[in-house]
Amino acid sequence: MDITGWRQKIDEIDRKLVELLGERARAVHEIGKLKALAGLPAYEPAREKAVFNNARNANRGELADRDLLRIYERIVDVMRQSEMDEMGVPKPPPSDGLGDTELDPEVND
Amino acid sequence: MDITGWRQKIDEIDRKLVELLGERARAVHEIGKLKALAGLPAYEPAREKAVFNNARNANRGELADRDLLRIYERIVDVMRQSEMDEMGVPKPPPSDGLGDTELDPEVND
Repeated sequence: MDITGWRQKIDEIDRKLVELLGERARAVHEIGKLKALAGLPAYEPAREKAVFNNARNANRGELADRDLLRIYERIVDVMRQSEMDEMGVPKPPPSDGLGDTELDPEVND
Repeated sequence: MDITGWRQKIDEIDRKLVELLGERARAVHEIGKLKALAGLPAYEPAREKAVFNNARNANRGELADRDLLRIYERIVDVMRQSEMDEMGVPKPPPSDGLGDTELDPEVND
C-alpha cells in the first residue's frame, strides 16, 4: 500500500476513534450525573488507575505502553474535566496550565 | 444503568479504542518507512491539519470539538514522535518538555 492508501486507512480509523470517544464521553457524562445525585466525588484515583490498567492490558504492542498511556492520560484528563464542569466542581488553580494526570509510577513503568 | 454498568461500558469502549490506536500506530509506522525510502520529511503540517479536520468532521457533538482536538493533539504528537524515532530524525530540543502540537488557530476555534 502506498502513502495515500495508508492515509486513507488512518482517516477511516480516526472516524471510528472519534465515534468511540463520543460514546465514551456520553458514558462519563452519565456517570457524572449519577455521582452528582449520590453525592459521590468526581475524582476517584483508584478508578483512574483501573482505567489505565485496562488500557494497558488491551495493548497488543503496536504502540509502546508508554505512548499509549500518554494518550490515555489526555483522554482521562479531558473527560474528567468535562465531568467536573458538568457537576459544578470548581476548577483547581492552574499549575502548568495543562492539567494532565500525573501518572502513578507503577502505571508509568 | 448504574455506575458499575457505565464503567463496564467504558472498559469495553477502551479495549476497542486501544485496538484502533494500535492499528493507527501500525499505519503511521508503515508511512514512516515509505517516507524514509522516498526521502520525504516526517513532519507535514498540511497533513496534520487534514487529520484534525477529519476528526472534527466526524464529531457528532458528544464531546466538545475543543476537547476532541486536545485528545487528537496528543495522539498526533505521540505517533509523530514515534515515527520520527523510527526514521532516525533527531529530537528537537525540549521546549516545555511536553512537545504538544501547537494547534492552528483555525482548527482550535
